[in-house]
Amino acid sequence: MPVRREVFDTRDFVTRGGATIPEVRVGYQTAGRLNAAGDNAVLVTHYFSGSAHAWGRYEEGGPLGFWDPLIGPGRAIDTDRFFVVASDTLVNLNVRDGRTVTTGPATINPATGRPWGTAFPVVAIRDFVEVQKRLLDHLGVARLAMVAGPSMGGMQAVEWAAAYPGMVDRVMVAISGAWFDPWMISQLDIWTAPVRLDPEWRGGEYGDGPGPVRGLAEAFKVITVMAQDRGALAPFGRAAAEGPDPACDIAGRFEVTRAMDAAAAERARLSDANHLLWMARANQLFLQDHASTEAALARAPARWLVVPSPTDHVWLPSYSQDLAAVLRGQGRAVEMAELTGAFGHLNGLAPAALEAIAPTVARFLSD
Amino acid sequence: MPVRREVFDTRDFVTRGGATIPEVRVGYQTAGRLNAAGDNAVLVTHYFSGSAHAWGRYEEGGPLGFWDPLIGPGRAIDTDRFFVVASDTLVNLNVRDGRTVTTGPATINPATGRPWGTAFPVVAIRDFVEVQKRLLDHLGVARLAMVAGPSMGGMQAVEWAAAYPGMVDRVMVAISGAWFDPWMISQLDIWTAPVRLDPEWRGGEYGDGPGPVRGLAEAFKVITVMAQDRGALAPFGRAAAEGPDPACDIAGRFEVTRAMDAAAAERARLSDANHLLWMARANQLFLQDHASTEAALARAPARWLVVPSPTDHVWLPSYSQDLAAVLRGQGRAVEMAELTGAFGHLNGLAPAALEAIAPTVARFLSD
Repeated sequence: MPVRREVFDTRDFVTRGGATIPEVRVGYQTAGRLNAAGDNAVLVTHYFSGSAHAWGRYEEGGPLGFWDPLIGPGRAIDTDRFFVVASDTLVNLNVRDGRTVTTGPATINPATGRPWGTAFPVVAIRDFVEVQKRLLDHLGVARLAMVAGPSMGGMQAVEWAAAYPGMVDRVMVAISGAWFDPWMISQLDIWTAPVRLDPEWRGGEYGDGPGPVRGLAEAFKVITVMAQDRGALAPFGRAAAEGPDPACDIAGRFEVTRAMDAAAAERARLSDANHLLWMARANQLFLQDHASTEAALARAPARWLVVPSPTDHVWLPSYSQDLAAVLRGQGRAVEMAELTGAFGHLNGLAPAALEAIAPTVARFLSD
Repeated sequence: MPVRREVFDTRDFVTRGGATIPEVRVGYQTAGRLNAAGDNAVLVTHYFSGSAHAWGRYEEGGPLGFWDPLIGPGRAIDTDRFFVVASDTLVNLNVRDGRTVTTGPATINPATGRPWGTAFPVVAIRDFVEVQKRLLDHLGVARLAMVAGPSMGGMQAVEWAAAYPGMVDRVMVAISGAWFDPWMISQLDIWTAPVRLDPEWRGGEYGDGPGPVRGLAEAFKVITVMAQDRGALAPFGRAAAEGPDPACDIAGRFEVTRAMDAAAAERARLSDANHLLWMARANQLFLQDHASTEAALARAPARWLVVPSPTDHVWLPSYSQDLAAVLRGQGRAVEMAELTGAFGHLNGLAPAALEAIAPTVARFLSD
């Protein structure tokens, strides 16, 4: 049966930066049933360029959700036992895909009837959590048996545990970490550089026009290359693309570049350049409310499952190891598992890797 | 005693792509004395953004060469025993630093009296090797006791061993590898994207004007972030830079970003955007003359020292491991050592890491 994206509206949302967003709308999907105590809920949080589409298909033959191998009847996150919720974040990248529902620079500012543009306030990962908290309150959720997600989803899970320590029983942090340190801040700065360089960006004031589509495509290409590992791209070989020969003409391209450019242009078409900048900033502000990551983690008595990918070039495995070490130092129960495969960071979304850790996730949720 | 950069001129250079460069000039420096047999030479090849400045200072208080801890009287590459040569490559990035001597799009085309611009032919790492071969012939070098370099320097060393197998006794490949596979091709594509996005690039035809200085600075920032590891940037912390607060204003910056932007702008001032593109392409064409990397390596009976950095995010350590495995499979003598420290790829230029491997290099050169 196809899944459905629902819409959640909430008003007068005050950001961590102190700005008010009069009307917030985000999409979400659920599976399973909430019990009477409201304590069998699992929140699945999405990655940087993801959406609420965590499992199932919206239509026959359509793509599966990003963690589908882990979520469903009889699966590790068993929808016969758990009420599973996934929501679109604020400033979501997929704002033009026709399904994702979000609020950000590309959506309408009710005060003007025009896109917010640069008038949209800076938001933080913590603001994503606060919108989710309102959604869960609306749905009647009292406790989270688990909050879990890959990459930026793992960051939201950490921020949940620090923001609502009494409400979170388990945290699963996949291909992620708890230190948005200067190297991570710098990585997201270079992800966004192509947008800022594109003259069509116009300082963010491109209105409802197409905006800096070329810069946005280059940004998606940067993200994809960094998120991959050498093995995943190997099938392209070193062949030249059609057109000028790269061995003789500086304008020539290799086949791998042509393919990455084409995929990135398609991603850019469904996305928005300002949303990329606002999303990057939200990440850079991860756990910013706390004196330190250690202080944030000290607030979180949950049980933890930390799942790095050994070939991850974005959230290096050392961030996961540091997270486990700090939590163990605080006396927490921490389990570790690895996502293996040829896809680097993207092992965290690869069906085979997810299937391989499913038994570990099932046991973690049963203990 | 200060070192001196000499200039080597050669004419009618035919590139691997079949184009002729009527006048080639590159800078070089030497130390030690060539023996009568001409077989005590060591060629030190430079990294992507490096130059012939491999050891010593050009003036009192000036910076040391990039491998100074390894090169000098009594050091691992002992200038009392060896005649050491290092040269600027074609299309060198430091074309505006006042010392580097190179030939590329930003230098004068003798046919027009104006910068070559996009009329400059695409060149490959193999062309760098061929210019060095002419220089070594000119200097009377008959054999290389070793060819050695970090990163792109290691690539030149591999290409030397494949191009002139009878002339190379030892090869030292540091923070490098022998497969410019689709992932490496893609990495260099994203290094150059900011230049191509800057409207001041004008398809490469910016003449002798400043050109795309902003895009070039962003490119240097990408390269620097990728070449670092998290530990090296940690001292910046998460502080905001002076100016708008990044927690409230999308135009705000973190201190680490401000510092990286400033360093990158300074690098851009001494460099040239087209040289970056031509240099990236030269890397993408590494070992392109051979049916495969394995075929190239099979031509090289030298002894090998392979030196990865375990935290390298550019030339992943797995490339070094693969190189050692293929060479061993071909019956070659291969030694491995590691460059450790907090600097990721840049451990290959870090004085402490170089001092730590110096005894290994000295033994390798004595055996």
